[in-house]
Amino acid sequence: MSFSEIEREVLEKLKPQRTLEEIGYRLYQSLKEKIEEALKSEGWKGDVTVQGSFAKGTWLATSPELDIFILLDPSFTYTDVKERVFPKLYRLFESLNPKVRFSEHPYLIVEIEGFTVEIVPAIRSEREGEFKTAVDRTPYHTRYVNLKADEYLKDQIRLLKQFARTIGVYSADIAVEGFSGYLLELLALYYGGFRETLEAASRWKAPVVIDLEGHYKSDREAARFFGGRPLIVVDPVDPKRNVASAVSRERLGEFIMASRLYLKRPSIYYFFLPEVDSSERKRLLSLLEPHLERTVIVDVRLRTTLPPDTIWGEAKRACRNIRSLLEREGFEVVRCSAWTNESNRAMVACLLEDAIKPEIARQRGPPVESFEHAMRFVEKYLTRPGCGPWIENGRLLALKERKYPNAVLLLKEKSEEYLVSDFKSGELDVYLLSWKPEVLEEARSWLEEFILGKPKWLLPYYLLLERE
Amino acid sequence: MSFSEIEREVLEKLKPQRTLEEIGYRLYQSLKEKIEEALKSEGWKGDVTVQGSFAKGTWLATSPELDIFILLDPSFTYTDVKERVFPKLYRLFESLNPKVRFSEHPYLIVEIEGFTVEIVPAIRSEREGEFKTAVDRTPYHTRYVNLKADEYLKDQIRLLKQFARTIGVYSADIAVEGFSGYLLELLALYYGGFRETLEAASRWKAPVVIDLEGHYKSDREAARFFGGRPLIVVDPVDPKRNVASAVSRERLGEFIMASRLYLKRPSIYYFFLPEVDSSERKRLLSLLEPHLERTVIVDVRLRTTLPPDTIWGEAKRACRNIRSLLEREGFEVVRCSAWTNESNRAMVACLLEDAIKPEIARQRGPPVESFEHAMRFVEKYLTRPGCGPWIENGRLLALKERKYPNAVLLLKEKSEEYLVSDFKSGELDVYLLSWKPEVLEEARSWLEEFILGKPKWLLPYYLLLERE
Repeated sequence: MSFSEIEREVLEKLKPQRTLEEIGYRLYQSLKEKIEEALKSEGWKGDVTVQGSFAKGTWLATSPELDIFILLDPSFTYTDVKERVFPKLYRLFESLNPKVRFSEHPYLIVEIEGFTVEIVPAIRSEREGEFKTAVDRTPYHTRYVNLKADEYLKDQIRLLKQFARTIGVYSADIAVEGFSGYLLELLALYYGGFRETLEAASRWKAPVVIDLEGHYKSDREAARFFGGRPLIVVDPVDPKRNVASAVSRERLGEFIMASRLYLKRPSIYYFFLPEVDSSERKRLLSLLEPHLERTVIVDVRLRTTLPPDTIWGEAKRACRNIRSLLEREGFEVVRCSAWTNESNRAMVACLLEDAIKPEIARQRGPPVESFEHAMRFVEKYLTRPGCGPWIENGRLLALKERKYPNAVLLLKEKSEEYLVSDFKSGELDVYLLSWKPEVLEEARSWLEEFILGKPKWLLPYYLLLERE
Repeated sequence: MSFSEIEREVLEKLKPQRTLEEIGYRLYQSLKEKIEEALKSEGWKGDVTVQGSFAKGTWLATSPELDIFILLDPSFTYTDVKERVFPKLYRLFESLNPKVRFSEHPYLIVEIEGFTVEIVPAIRSEREGEFKTAVDRTPYHTRYVNLKADEYLKDQIRLLKQFARTIGVYSADIAVEGFSGYLLELLALYYGGFRETLEAASRWKAPVVIDLEGHYKSDREAARFFGGRPLIVVDPVDPKRNVASAVSRERLGEFIMASRLYLKRPSIYYFFLPEVDSSERKRLLSLLEPHLERTVIVDVRLRTTLPPDTIWGEAKRACRNIRSLLEREGFEVVRCSAWTNESNRAMVACLLEDAIKPEIARQRGPPVESFEHAMRFVEKYLTRPGCGPWIENGRLLALKERKYPNAVLLLKEKSEEYLVSDFKSGELDVYLLSWKPEVLEEARSWLEEFILGKPKWLLPYYLLLERE
């Protein structure tokens, strides 16, 4: 299939049908009324508005979502929102079993009639660029996109969002560290379309600077201001904000690679990944069964529940610490990854070349010529188990026993070194994946992707080749 | 015991008794007559002389040796010596079962009445510094040492030689790459005694330059002339010759370390190493039994016999090649060593951290940003066994299968890469030491030292501590 055939076919599935739009709209109306009544009963001034992709006409039929923002009167403060408005909203929707999320202050997510509805209290800003809370810019984002994007571009945005989702880079959450919806909208606007964005991305070299409204004199000036980030997209409505600040080097690289691969061999798989059926999955995993023997799992169960961002943050930090500890002790780390159920359990998986190292290791000593050190080295290693010291290339060397030849025992004993804050009080278990294959059930899709080692950005291309 | 008590006691054993001296002298007289007759019968002019340590009075009762040099008339050429004189000498001593050695031209070694007798044809040089063959300087060496050393110094030389022998650095042969007798004589002369030499050596920093007769303007000039050697001792009788040219960095380092250890804790063990009895040896080796599992032996049996220096040279070269091959394929090499029976068998032993590596290894790829390379890397590793590619720190990575996870199989298959010249046609066997413990019989002392990893320079100090 040609590019345009694929993209037309994909769009047909992505673009919401009239009826779905109507459901969304009616839903919005009824929630709006409910919230307005509550505001009135408290004597609070504010407008209930629809924002986000629904308001912009860039939402996907495959994941209907509705963002309802309560734009409170500018006389409200951040503390008001957090301590008075939010609790009121929570009670209002308690019966719908809402989830609480935090941007800078808390907001609600409820699932109604197939829609994911976010209910966000914000403060109407009196002037563009002057915002009391992080979400106050949202109405300006909505206005900006609606002003700049026509129907064609909105479809192109839909393609880009679905592409980003399939290759695993969609979302600015710490769990993903990728591209927010607004960021993808700006990219499509800037480059003029879906494929144009991919073509540009396939040649990106970090740091990439995009400044749609020319807020900065030069890319270099912007890069200096937002220092260190690989992707810098200046927010048209707030020059001090990098819309892409969440994007990690890895996600950026994945987006670049996936763009190249799609352009090389376009396929509908980049939008709708075919189901890998259970027999195929079994075959793939059986090929990789030896990896279970090399995969160490650090499994933490907390006694309390943590908010998603917090637990993701700690899991990722533990992951980095575990990796350095393993490397410091001489293990060759192939790959590490963190996962959490977003409430009270987190795991880190590390695939090693080998989970058991030889019990012995060479220890480099000082040059023979440095008198004091050489003598001390001889005294230290002379009577140890192992052997030596001997001399090689003018240096002393010895063989020493490795303190931790077993990665599992190392991680069991040294948990103090890598577990941080809340995780410290959790219940810790460390094991090889092969010892407890049942964890494959609990964290299936993460662990399967981890072991398979074909990340989402690569999977469409891989399946394409496999199925030819 | 104090230094001087130890050294006096040692000297008593090292200094030849009157009767032994007389045996040597009579032996020299009878051989001299025999050779003179032979020269006469051919009409060759030349003097039969005693040289070397016997002539200098620096030989050891513990290894009586006699160097008989035939100083042919200066009208002889190098070719005469090699093609006419040597064959005549060989026939003359054939009944004594002589061994043939080569310096630059061949000479004979025979064992008679407890003496190791070298019979060396040479050409009398007409002027000091003008030599037709490598051995022609020997008479000048004899004269120099006799001129400079009194009885006291000759005893000091004896101590130094025995010390060097015990710590395994005595001999300029390629098998040892250490200190010749003449070199040790010059050192003792230069520093004024045995202990003075050790004190100086313990603070040596390579390159060490010793120029007894001040042939060079400065140490730096000498170092430049003899470039690259760690120890430079200018031959008093031939300024263009470095008496220490054979000394390797390792042997130099060992001499330095042993000097320090002796000075720290003097002991008779540095001259006469106590026998390690068989139960003690068994205990030591049992501690190191796991090392047999990690020691790969490359065992070459030749179809013909090679001269000692040639076979040592090839064994050492094979050893270096084997080491690089193992390291290139990812094995952590602890230590390698070569051995030969000096005629038709050679072995290389390599102690590895592990003789079996994990079947998988990380493969680093190009940065994501280098378009062509990144795409090629993906194509290459995408469908291989193993997994990946994935992205880390902006680079592609993949897991690949290791081609040679087993060191023994690697060395079996790649022998073409490390065996050189004569060894190529030999019969090759590669195995772990644990598979063929019987080779421990055939090359016992080398392999025991190798596995124990307490080189000769360290052994006196080690035994001293162990036995306290």
